[in-house]
Amino acid sequence: MAQPHPTATAALSLNTDIGEGYGAWVIADDEVLLGLVTDANLACGFHASDPDIMRRTCQTARQRSVAIGAQVGFRDVIGFGRRFIQVPRATLSNDVLYQLGALSAFASAEQAPITFVKVHGALYHAAVQHESYARAIIDAVRDFDPDLPVLCQPGTAFWRAVQDAGLSTVAEGYLDRAYTAEGLLVPRGEPGAVITDPQAAARRAVQFATERTVTAIDGTVLDMPVASVCVHSDSPGASALAAAAREALEEAGVALRSLSGKVAVGG
Amino acid sequence: MAQPHPTATAALSLNTDIGEGYGAWVIADDEVLLGLVTDANLACGFHASDPDIMRRTCQTARQRSVAIGAQVGFRDVIGFGRRFIQVPRATLSNDVLYQLGALSAFASAEQAPITFVKVHGALYHAAVQHESYARAIIDAVRDFDPDLPVLCQPGTAFWRAVQDAGLSTVAEGYLDRAYTAEGLLVPRGEPGAVITDPQAAARRAVQFATERTVTAIDGTVLDMPVASVCVHSDSPGASALAAAAREALEEAGVALRSLSGKVAVGG
Amino acid sequence: MAQPHPTATAALSLNTDIGEGYGAWVIADDEVLLGLVTDANLACGFHASDPDIMRRTCQTARQRSVAIGAQVGFRDVIGFGRRFIQVPRATLSNDVLYQLGALSAFASAEQAPITFVKVHGALYHAAVQHESYARAIIDAVRDFDPDLPVLCQPGTAFWRAVQDAGLSTVAEGYLDRAYTAEGLLVPRGEPGAVITDPQAAARRAVQFATERTVTAIDGTVLDMPVASVCVHSDSPGASALAAAAREALEEAGVALRSLSGKVAVGG
Amino acid sequence: MAQPHPTATAALSLNTDIGEGYGAWVIADDEVLLGLVTDANLACGFHASDPDIMRRTCQTARQRSVAIGAQVGFRDVIGFGRRFIQVPRATLSNDVLYQLGALSAFASAEQAPITFVKVHGALYHAAVQHESYARAIIDAVRDFDPDLPVLCQPGTAFWRAVQDAGLSTVAEGYLDRAYTAEGLLVPRGEPGAVITDPQAAARRAVQFATERTVTAIDGTVLDMPVASVCVHSDSPGASALAAAAREALEEAGVALRSLSGKVAVGG
Repeated sequence: MAQPHPTATAALSLNTDIGEGYGAWVIADDEVLLGLVTDANLACGFHASDPDIMRRTCQTARQRSVAIGAQVGFRDVIGFGRRFIQVPRATLSNDVLYQLGALSAFASAEQAPITFVKVHGALYHAAVQHESYARAIIDAVRDFDPDLPVLCQPGTAFWRAVQDAGLSTVAEGYLDRAYTAEGLLVPRGEPGAVITDPQAAARRAVQFATERTVTAIDGTVLDMPVASVCVHSDSPGASALAAAAREALEEAGVALRSLSGKVAVGG
Repeated sequence: MAQPHPTATAALSLNTDIGEGYGAWVIADDEVLLGLVTDANLACGFHASDPDIMRRTCQTARQRSVAIGAQVGFRDVIGFGRRFIQVPRATLSNDVLYQLGALSAFASAEQAPITFVKVHGALYHAAVQHESYARAIIDAVRDFDPDLPVLCQPGTAFWRAVQDAGLSTVAEGYLDRAYTAEGLLVPRGEPGAVITDPQAAARRAVQFATERTVTAIDGTVLDMPVASVCVHSDSPGASALAAAAREALEEAGVALRSLSGKVAVGG
Repeated sequence: MAQPHPTATAALSLNTDIGEGYGAWVIADDEVLLGLVTDANLACGFHASDPDIMRRTCQTARQRSVAIGAQVGFRDVIGFGRRFIQVPRATLSNDVLYQLGALSAFASAEQAPITFVKVHGALYHAAVQHESYARAIIDAVRDFDPDLPVLCQPGTAFWRAVQDAGLSTVAEGYLDRAYTAEGLLVPRGEPGAVITDPQAAARRAVQFATERTVTAIDGTVLDMPVASVCVHSDSPGASALAAAAREALEEAGVALRSLSGKVAVGG
Repeated sequence: MAQPHPTATAALSLNTDIGEGYGAWVIADDEVLLGLVTDANLACGFHASDPDIMRRTCQTARQRSVAIGAQVGFRDVIGFGRRFIQVPRATLSNDVLYQLGALSAFASAEQAPITFVKVHGALYHAAVQHESYARAIIDAVRDFDPDLPVLCQPGTAFWRAVQDAGLSTVAEGYLDRAYTAEGLLVPRGEPGAVITDPQAAARRAVQFATERTVTAIDGTVLDMPVASVCVHSDSPGASALAAAAREALEEAGVALRSLSGKVAVGG
């Protein structure tokens, strides 16, 4: 009976990027996703989103008891925040602070506090690779609210920089991305990098929650104690994947618990 | 001895638009103006300004004990907020709320609270002329902080709408603009509409403060009890005008007092 | 003998708005629509589109023998060009000229000349209602290429202004919008204003082509000799509607002929 | 007799960046500079400028017989084109083609043809350092007009890539920047990198024109046969520097000749 039983305390947060439309344009089925996840990473208008979308998404998230995170990105709507931009540290820090402030106005208006910060796309990669970018983000979070945790992958340079700066981290895993034996993500474009089978994603969710491990692409089982797992919303099958994960977690007796501490009560 | 003496309580706030550069571009001598005024209306990135400018301006304002107001405008950088845009009420309200939230992050980071709200350019004119625009702004201020006063011209439809909504108003006069006998501004472009002589502006400042009146373009003396007088920063002689007004007020024994209640202690 | 028979020369152009994505965002199934229409009105980056989309759309249009028109709009990506903006005539004219020049570079690079100009959204309404906006567009077309025809609805003030200015017009009808007895469009929002039934649209297409009339919402039959009929691409059933119209026209023996004079040879 | 005499054929073009305002914002005294240079590199709206500025600058340039070049840059108004952005080759090429097309519409409307292409700021540095960026620009120029020469510094990788692609180059020197002994620019920030003394710049102009050399920062005399010398317009003393250079060239009997082949006839 090698299979460990979930304990009463096994719990997991399920997060997704959300509110990434722009004006007349839509990119994901936010309504459906907000019925499946426990935590939503809201774009703040710099890589996607606009004031109407931010307002509406805060409102829907609160109605669904989904916790709100600020997903900050490069100032690059036309590039969807996916392109590296060489931004001086002070400017980048102010760009992030601007986004946090803007989102907080909508979150407050909808009585839905910002619970965490997540970093989007190319800015996340920059934060992992360049200390100056990590520091800029850290400076902004500290200026905004030093108690706000940063959601990111354990073991990265960004994770360590956040902890060294005295801010809180929340460990994140990925349902739809394969890991290397070193615990890093297999780069997009390599075979098997992206997981599109909902059942495979669901099994990973349960493994993250109950065994606190993930199985790498070469079969190695890695310790990976995460508090939240991410489904990227801009992949075609995002909803199906999130739904399968949620169902499997519920069947396994894992509590779906948002980063704000609320337990999800249904889709 | 018809000339009334300033009493110990005679006080006036001197405000100006500030932080209206954009990226590499500069439009006014903000450093000089921040040494002359008591209150600064900071652009919030929608008609002008950017995160770096907002940060720096909050910092300088605090160092100079200048109170910070949020100057909200249309989302129209290329038009500098001077063009009417047909924006639905809910969208406009969210546009304003986004700006207030963004500025508040910088104000908080610099320990310099937002003291009031002012409306910029074409959005101000829209608020005076169209109830839907006035309501949108009011909705945003109420969502953001219902205790935040709105700085505007008494007697306008916008002024009444703000008061009817239960928000506070702060009465504003203009040093550099002529009034009609009805107490409205002479439209730009008409002869005498814009006052460019620093001494004339200075005399008006003292009259506003000590007699609580303004002399209209036809010589009529109008009751005009204002708490703050505005110098528009994007006119060439703005600094000279503000300096003359400040000097004349000090000579007349009028306290320069910001809308946050602080008394200015020197340029 | 009331029913006129289509003659051998009965021909119609079928046009649609195209290339209205932005960066990562998609709004219509351009690939499918470009297989159905004879003429494509390409957004030029001011209300929608970007350089990649413009390049790709020019390329696809040429491959499908679809003629290219420039669809110019207000500089308002966030509003999708659907909001009136108060733009001085000279500025608006330069905004339009910029768009025409930009598109022409892609059209030339893909050996697909610009065949006509069409005006988008709120700018079209402004051109119909305000002479200054009509004149600004006309000035730009004349500066760019005085031989370029303008596609618009006959009987409008804009139509007359274009003709009075000595430019060419191409008469346009609408498959998916109801007409009043006066030959104007029933405003969106009124009952019956938008036609969503593909068969109804198809019957209208044949009537436009063979009888050169349209039946108004009250049953009045109006003379409406148009060279091109429009299907708006941003309505959900646009492709089905265009497909039905194309099929019905082909069955009725009407030649599908683009505004460049080419006869369509298949979907 | 060491000093060579200028021959009757000694001629030089004097170029500057121009039209780099944005909306209400101004950054340089374009009117004065257009009275001093023979060639103007017009921003095209991606790093600076807007349709009104492009129109007005084309008009003034033609009136002053100043030849027009397209100065293309990254799509980055807020960063003034000074920040590296990771742009895929095809996207960058389309970005450049869009700019060339837009400027050409204004140039044509003002009967002032585009005479050359120059690359701005961070995009220029990217073109020098990364072949993919050089190739993207080259692709766009070839798509737009393969006869259009590219103005750049001889000896750089970008220069070689342009020539290898079969496009024309025009060699450019810098009046306001020091050279290393290897013929490269001393990086901004190092001592002596920027030349601000008008007389020093003037002497360099004459040396470029009559000796076809430049003296590096360590005293080495380098062969540097250039057709045009640049004064950067966004440095404070740009006009004084250009005026001194022009006067010195005229005194030395050097013809001021634009890249379009026109000889300047006066300021």
